[in-house]
Amino acid sequence: MIRPIITLTTDFGLSDHFVGVMKGVILGIQPAARIIDISHGVQPYQIADGAFTIAQAYRYFPKKTIHVVVVDPGVGSTRRPLLAEMAGQYFVAPDNGVLSMIFAREDGGVEQAIVRHVTSERYFLQPLSRTFHGRDVFSPVAAHLAAGVTPAKFGKRIEDYLRASFDKPTHTGKRRWTGIVLKADHFGNLATNFHIDEFPSIRTHAFSLKTGTKVITRLALTFSESAPGELVAIVGSSGYIEVAAGQGSAAKALGCGAGAPVELTIY
Amino acid sequence: MIRPIITLTTDFGLSDHFVGVMKGVILGIQPAARIIDISHGVQPYQIADGAFTIAQAYRYFPKKTIHVVVVDPGVGSTRRPLLAEMAGQYFVAPDNGVLSMIFAREDGGVEQAIVRHVTSERYFLQPLSRTFHGRDVFSPVAAHLAAGVTPAKFGKRIEDYLRASFDKPTHTGKRRWTGIVLKADHFGNLATNFHIDEFPSIRTHAFSLKTGTKVITRLALTFSESAPGELVAIVGSSGYIEVAAGQGSAAKALGCGAGAPVELTIY
Amino acid sequence: MIRPIITLTTDFGLSDHFVGVMKGVILGIQPAARIIDISHGVQPYQIADGAFTIAQAYRYFPKKTIHVVVVDPGVGSTRRPLLAEMAGQYFVAPDNGVLSMIFAREDGGVEQAIVRHVTSERYFLQPLSRTFHGRDVFSPVAAHLAAGVTPAKFGKRIEDYLRASFDKPTHTGKRRWTGIVLKADHFGNLATNFHIDEFPSIRTHAFSLKTGTKVITRLALTFSESAPGELVAIVGSSGYIEVAAGQGSAAKALGCGAGAPVELTIY
Repeated sequence: MIRPIITLTTDFGLSDHFVGVMKGVILGIQPAARIIDISHGVQPYQIADGAFTIAQAYRYFPKKTIHVVVVDPGVGSTRRPLLAEMAGQYFVAPDNGVLSMIFAREDGGVEQAIVRHVTSERYFLQPLSRTFHGRDVFSPVAAHLAAGVTPAKFGKRIEDYLRASFDKPTHTGKRRWTGIVLKADHFGNLATNFHIDEFPSIRTHAFSLKTGTKVITRLALTFSESAPGELVAIVGSSGYIEVAAGQGSAAKALGCGAGAPVELTIY
Repeated sequence: MIRPIITLTTDFGLSDHFVGVMKGVILGIQPAARIIDISHGVQPYQIADGAFTIAQAYRYFPKKTIHVVVVDPGVGSTRRPLLAEMAGQYFVAPDNGVLSMIFAREDGGVEQAIVRHVTSERYFLQPLSRTFHGRDVFSPVAAHLAAGVTPAKFGKRIEDYLRASFDKPTHTGKRRWTGIVLKADHFGNLATNFHIDEFPSIRTHAFSLKTGTKVITRLALTFSESAPGELVAIVGSSGYIEVAAGQGSAAKALGCGAGAPVELTIY
Repeated sequence: MIRPIITLTTDFGLSDHFVGVMKGVILGIQPAARIIDISHGVQPYQIADGAFTIAQAYRYFPKKTIHVVVVDPGVGSTRRPLLAEMAGQYFVAPDNGVLSMIFAREDGGVEQAIVRHVTSERYFLQPLSRTFHGRDVFSPVAAHLAAGVTPAKFGKRIEDYLRASFDKPTHTGKRRWTGIVLKADHFGNLATNFHIDEFPSIRTHAFSLKTGTKVITRLALTFSESAPGELVAIVGSSGYIEVAAGQGSAAKALGCGAGAPVELTIY
């Protein structure tokens, strides 16, 4: 009797009718669905940003949640629509790597991901456009799933779905690694791809983290313990090491964002 | 037993309390309502943008959905609040043309629109402000409607509601039409007011579409089949012909947006 | 049987996963909760802006609504998390003044606010981060409250919570007061801290309102009665006197925003 939850993560922004249309399509098929926006502010066409966004959020949702993820520069081409079951949840998304950070975490563990190529056009909106599969494919598939259609009805299981390897830091010297900035968040904090689980020694050893023209040597425990404008490293809420500026924007102070190189040396 | 759906389309943006207040008012009157945001990113005071936004979205929602549309530069003046029944749905909006694209599509067909001038102040919030009828008029009227008040209770039926004629292309030469850009969307695609239903021959004939200083001669089927930066025409998901730039922003490339002239020649 | 309502007001913006994560946490604990966004566009770290936003909105929500307010520059420091009961509603927020405008209105009246220091870590997400208490503290506390945990279980009642005194106009001359701009809204209207209840005579007396380099002497009743670009004073929907520009942005015309000084003289 619990009403199904469908989340939306897209690069559609909020100034057009796109997101509203997706919600209408879902409610037209499954009026009991509860629709939750994760973010529509993924950078346009940036699959890595979408992959990061959903990967930080899905684990907090209840079992059986259906996540619709539409960052889809290849819409209308031959890229496949996917329905994936992982971690007790469902994911409806294009086969372009946008689920990669979740595959990396969930797939191949105790429970393997079950990934299907969605081919049953009876669950699509007709006529099928070539430019808006958020409306015509991903939303209706999610809604039919929420209405009780079993996953197997949507298409055959596949193994060759795209597992993009998102940039991991590379070992470039004795005690040195080169990574990148994954994302500049709303506050201007720069999340790097150095994860505390892989670099726990920055908690106990001296280190230098070089981004842009600056070198950061201090690990702060909280945002509030840095002086206004002071650049510090901090273990972010997702476990990635972030560069933050006391009550300001590190992105502005350093003039850099997603993709910028980061060099970590641990002494 | 299905809980009523109320959608919101406004130019209020998301940085203020305005939208939150509307939601509070609705839930205060009809706690069972489900509130769905279509968009609050309509350009401030731009009735045509609001008209376009709701007209692209309403058809996807279930019957009986109540759409609240507030783009209301004349708030507090003598412009009338309307309650319209069309296409099995309800619309609550100012009488300023913001429903015109829906009237143009639904009215005068098999079923005529039933449009009422909302005058029953007992359904308004009191004291009635002169500056925020989204809060004091449109939201409470929608909520009372969702709570079961019959449409006739809100006011008398009228026939002289505003049917703004949104710019249609005009025939300006033997095989030439002049139109405009209706909207630059989040991706920088430029939706023109040339609809494929009225200009189907661009699918089969050579054509030139002039916008800004550029002339586009190729119709692409998908966004992904244009080269990076290449300007192409494409039939958008709403049926309007759009100008797109391969994985980029046509609006930026052409330096133009809503209102810019477009000239189409079909050979 | 009415499903509990939880509202969210934050400075997290909409381009990251933060808000989606909060929603996931809430639904994971209390799947029946209905989550309503008030605004995530509070200016980063601006407690006064957050205080203004929630104070304009809460009164419109039904009794028993739970409001989560996270503008939290001191996250991870010793600032306390609060659970407050006022006006028949609940508020979960850091003890940094963000509830001050509500305390000022509701507290010490017929019913006093009941404010608790939330200390029961069993209601927090574990491990508790030092950087994202919106996820680890405020959302789960709100969700457990919505799930039926009684307020007293969260922590002991306190009296010394922060009651920041938001800027009130000061009397600076015989008929002269100096105040500030509280907020520039989405339309560029400048809400001042002059409230009509305290300055009713501007309705009946000549006055001059000086902001930036301009002096405004006319009180308009509606936005639509000012000439395009004309600067007028208007009683805003919250009761604060606003400076507006006919169909334009007063903020742009005057080049000023939150914090700018305003001088009112009543003759």
